Amino acid sequence: MHSLHVDLGDRSYPILIGSGLLKDPRYFEQCIRGKQVLIVTNETIAPLYLETVLAALSGFAKIDTVQLPDGEAFKTLDTVNRVFDTLLEKRHDRSTTIVALGGGVIGDMSGFAAACYQRGVDFVQVPTTLLSQVDSSVGGKTGVNHPLGKNMIGAFYQPQLVLIDIETLTTLPDRELSAGIAEVIKYGMICDAPFFEWLEANMDALLSRDPDALAYAIDRSCADKAAVVAEDERESGRRAILNFGHTFGHAIEAVQGYGNWLHGEAVAAGMVMAAELSCRRGWISARDVERLRALLSKANLPQQSPEGMTVDDYLQAMSVDKKVQDGKLRLVLLRALGDAQIVADTPKDQLMDALRACGAG
Amino acid sequence: MHSLHVDLGDRSYPILIGSGLLKDPRYFEQCIRGKQVLIVTNETIAPLYLETVLAALSGFAKIDTVQLPDGEAFKTLDTVNRVFDTLLEKRHDRSTTIVALGGGVIGDMSGFAAACYQRGVDFVQVPTTLLSQVDSSVGGKTGVNHPLGKNMIGAFYQPQLVLIDIETLTTLPDRELSAGIAEVIKYGMICDAPFFEWLEANMDALLSRDPDALAYAIDRSCADKAAVVAEDERESGRRAILNFGHTFGHAIEAVQGYGNWLHGEAVAAGMVMAAELSCRRGWISARDVERLRALLSKANLPQQSPEGMTVDDYLQAMSVDKKVQDGKLRLVLLRALGDAQIVADTPKDQLMDALRACGAG
Repeated sequence: MHSLHVDLGDRSYPILIGSGLLKDPRYFEQCIRGKQVLIVTNETIAPLYLETVLAALSGFAKIDTVQLPDGEAFKTLDTVNRVFDTLLEKRHDRSTTIVALGGGVIGDMSGFAAACYQRGVDFVQVPTTLLSQVDSSVGGKTGVNHPLGKNMIGAFYQPQLVLIDIETLTTLPDRELSAGIAEVIKYGMICDAPFFEWLEANMDALLSRDPDALAYAIDRSCADKAAVVAEDERESGRRAILNFGHTFGHAIEAVQGYGNWLHGEAVAAGMVMAAELSCRRGWISARDVERLRALLSKANLPQQSPEGMTVDDYLQAMSVDKKVQDGKLRLVLLRALGDAQIVADTPKDQLMDALRACGAG
Repeated sequence: MHSLHVDLGDRSYPILIGSGLLKDPRYFEQCIRGKQVLIVTNETIAPLYLETVLAALSGFAKIDTVQLPDGEAFKTLDTVNRVFDTLLEKRHDRSTTIVALGGGVIGDMSGFAAACYQRGVDFVQVPTTLLSQVDSSVGGKTGVNHPLGKNMIGAFYQPQLVLIDIETLTTLPDRELSAGIAEVIKYGMICDAPFFEWLEANMDALLSRDPDALAYAIDRSCADKAAVVAEDERESGRRAILNFGHTFGHAIEAVQGYGNWLHGEAVAAGMVMAAELSCRRGWISARDVERLRALLSKANLPQQSPEGMTVDDYLQAMSVDKKVQDGKLRLVLLRALGDAQIVADTPKDQLMDALRACGAG
């Protein structure tokens, strides 16, 4: 088992990564302080893993479950309200612990519910998709979407524990595995060039779900992210490099409608856009952009804008992005492979040119 | 002008108390860091003070306003969502500041909206009722009600500034002035016996809205509360003494329906219940209980349970209160006048007896 410590002062917590962790009551018992537990999961994950987790939690006096509908389209305030309904109907008090069993959507909503229920209760993440294991399980970003913008309502809230059971990836559809790999590649791009090279050499092993390769990639991704977050928990500065590709990706998701493109797929295309822009600024080379495109292609991820989306669609969608500050669009670009930087002075023509290089109309 | 510093490390902020502060742009300009401002107010307050505040804020590039319906019945997630709608429709980014202009309900919802919008934006409180000036403007408790419980959804979130303009009290209805005085009396009861004596001597001046008396009572109440909060921001321990009378009060509000009894009225009756219980435990004297009843009576506040409410109503309602921990009801009682203590071992017969002493059926 790999174990990682996310260092955030009195909000620090461990990430445990290994095979078969879900079955073992010890990990839950070590970190759940009260006697009440609410498992938040969805209709897809419940048939696969709920029984296992219920068995592991059987030592607790009170265990309730709420099953939410599956998908980004349901990541709303209304759905979170169903978690509050259950907590109150079942009389959970301030000592309860919310266990998020599922992917990033479940994690984001459960974490937000934990942040807000009685102004804050304990929270354990059990991410079951590669994307949520390498991304949303580190950093404490929780929240929901609003019809006018993604992740616009939320809180910074840290869990007590993140439990990553590699075995849950055996049931993950291929398309979602690839979507997770997009975020893994991101860490190589923004802060870990040697990891990017490792991915170039080991993509086949990841795609064939080799447990050792998966465990290594998850561990390294979480460590890369934890290092960035520890420096800047509330994203006042450098943490924003984690949004590499995301401003473009959010535009794709917003215009396509949440859920049509997977988040990781949108981020993949978005990373190419950011890379093309970095290249036009004279930072990374055309060869670097090509390496990114090749790696994404090997991982079965898109490198182009969705058909029919125009440059104007992007400009419009990006103007409501959280990365806008006092009217200026802030973007994450690459000075070199493995070295990201936040810029607020992108010339509009370069931006439009980079979008067109990725097929935006 | 009185000025008070709430000491919470990097979340510290000032409270300014005086006459005519709303008119003066300086106070806003000193603490608002961005260029965008959203004023959140309600249909009752807007006709009285919105224009004044808009004028004082006229130096900012972008000022929007959202008017919410007035009253505790509207303190819901749906109403907060209207604030999010406005913020997004008007394209407010992460550098925006939310200005809460109104009573406690506006402050609680605006603060919660500020805590959650883009995971946290700046927030200025302009409380316009005595209750919100002495209570919700200190301590960072924000949130909304749920059909199954009061303040069940929320966040701890501190403002950048609290601006208390005594002149706003000239338009406050008598009944609401008294409701605010209930919380003022509370500070005397739980931690400031000399202030309780001052209130016994100066209640007439407060009721006749003498500006000096009001300013003194607000300043001292805020200082008393700030001292308690500075010790225990997130209510892991001693801060709970601020809930003196509130567990009973919340039961009254829940059973009567929010808004039929004002919060301060429910707290007044609740304080008598807690005092009667403290007396039965052998702590404060029957004479102390009598002094509380007399002071509340002078302030035109209730000292008895609402007609028709039974002991069982209280027991049922209090079992979902946030003060319940691992199944145990925690109550704030008085060892002496000015000395509160949290207890978790109240004998049920004493509790029922105290409720009956206040007229519960």
